[in-house]
Amino acid sequence: MSLTVVGSVAFDAVETPFGKRDKMLGGAGTHFALAASFFTDVRVIGVVGNDFTNAEWAVFERHKINTDDIEVVAGGKTFFWRGKYEFDLNTAHTLETQLNVFETFEPKPSEESKNSRLLFLANILPMLQKQVREQSEAEFVAMDTMNFWIDSMKDVVIDTIKVVDCVIINDAEARQLADEPNIHKAAKKIMDWGPKALVIKRGEYGAALFTKDDYFAIPAYPLESVFDPTGAGDTFAGGFMGYLASQVEITDDALRRAMIYGSVMASFNVEEFGTERVDRLTQDEINERFRNFKRMTHFEEIPFERATSA
Amino acid sequence: MSLTVVGSVAFDAVETPFGKRDKMLGGAGTHFALAASFFTDVRVIGVVGNDFTNAEWAVFERHKINTDDIEVVAGGKTFFWRGKYEFDLNTAHTLETQLNVFETFEPKPSEESKNSRLLFLANILPMLQKQVREQSEAEFVAMDTMNFWIDSMKDVVIDTIKVVDCVIINDAEARQLADEPNIHKAAKKIMDWGPKALVIKRGEYGAALFTKDDYFAIPAYPLESVFDPTGAGDTFAGGFMGYLASQVEITDDALRRAMIYGSVMASFNVEEFGTERVDRLTQDEINERFRNFKRMTHFEEIPFERATSA
Repeated sequence: MSLTVVGSVAFDAVETPFGKRDKMLGGAGTHFALAASFFTDVRVIGVVGNDFTNAEWAVFERHKINTDDIEVVAGGKTFFWRGKYEFDLNTAHTLETQLNVFETFEPKPSEESKNSRLLFLANILPMLQKQVREQSEAEFVAMDTMNFWIDSMKDVVIDTIKVVDCVIINDAEARQLADEPNIHKAAKKIMDWGPKALVIKRGEYGAALFTKDDYFAIPAYPLESVFDPTGAGDTFAGGFMGYLASQVEITDDALRRAMIYGSVMASFNVEEFGTERVDRLTQDEINERFRNFKRMTHFEEIPFERATSA
Repeated sequence: MSLTVVGSVAFDAVETPFGKRDKMLGGAGTHFALAASFFTDVRVIGVVGNDFTNAEWAVFERHKINTDDIEVVAGGKTFFWRGKYEFDLNTAHTLETQLNVFETFEPKPSEESKNSRLLFLANILPMLQKQVREQSEAEFVAMDTMNFWIDSMKDVVIDTIKVVDCVIINDAEARQLADEPNIHKAAKKIMDWGPKALVIKRGEYGAALFTKDDYFAIPAYPLESVFDPTGAGDTFAGGFMGYLASQVEITDDALRRAMIYGSVMASFNVEEFGTERVDRLTQDEINERFRNFKRMTHFEEIPFERATSA
């Protein structure tokens, strides 16, 4: 198996200025795996209750996502999150969180998961991320985290960063982690902890990639309407890691293209509720937006020579 | 003369977390002309008092900026602005504004200014922008504006937009002008008023260019420290218009490169107080950052093909 993710599989209730859903498939592990499935074979380590129905399992099946490592807790209820977005869709307001079976989640990676070539540690308790990483033989491991863990256990977050190859976070998290308002100084500090790559997501402003000797930055895909941003970050990570898993070697050039595929996948994710848009996506649609990305960022390199003035 | 700007020539007092200056050369017309002078012959239409000393005139002379259309009001005092930046350098807090001779400024373009191939209307009273535009024979006219005019006389701002070729504003101004939170919808609305091009500046997040059939977006030049952002927007516009003035034809490709040169010039401007950094800039330094821009935004266009999974 080429790519494994450990993360939440959940039900979400979401309200945006454009509509609402009372209960739909969500969770970081779900969004990640769905996006990655367009590029590679992917496997999820997670936990659900037996309120998880055939309709939810069917989404995974449709995309050939391996769910052998998703534990089903008999009599348990699946992680549930209810959130609301105001007119400014950048910030989610959490209205309700029921951890349910996720509260005592202990990831139990199978041999197949441990032998996965790439591994993504979605946003879960940093000690669990570290545990899963230490059991893994993966050649390339990336992680996410969030403000809540940085606030309450920054040391453990940093210890986890020290044992991964790539960190994928948003700009507020990067500033908070490094305790440094300038994003380039913050990136340098995080890179000093050891990862080979750092991806900083900036929502509607795009994303930036820092590697040892390289810097790459892209705008976001232009969208006239953002419908529901839930899962956009995990969808980005899924496109990014999924694309890398499809490449024989993880070079700086492959990382750059992975940034584009991550952004493309996220751009689809936000167009409809939850997993709805990505669920029925085609490879042609993905490649079309990839080409558009090239078109909207390309310029000819013609250095300027000042003509002698009259 | 290939490029003319009408705008303020001023004294600024600026305080940032990194230091302060009690009185230094500033003003939109100044920053614009200085940046443009690296690319083309440039002329300023403006007004100063006779407190303007040889030290200030010397900056213009050093860069061969034509000041014949800068009126000197005997016994008058030059426009003075005092501002302060907090740790978040994105927002300037105005502490004091003395319009002085600028209060009754009536631009009097000479024949040379009227015949300039390109014209930039820096941020002044929109009626004055419109007047200068209507007296001009320029082939390409761009304008700036600000929240104050959009608040108090949006109709006049829109009337002025209708008679220019290009609008160069920041994203908050674009949203406010179009009364539309989504930047792509806002851009469409502004383009519908007639301009051929719209540049939206996004500070540390870069800039975007909208033309009839084209969209181009770039990140900002990566800087570990921003010292004084005063004049960054006008410096961007100066690099942008200056580069265009150096080109035989204003094509979409030229506009794209102009975006890069604008960003490069702005990236230097913010590194020191006022005009200090740009004043001693070299063409080699400019071209080096242009090449860096190419390096940090380039990726190979290799469409993805999913291998049949095992």
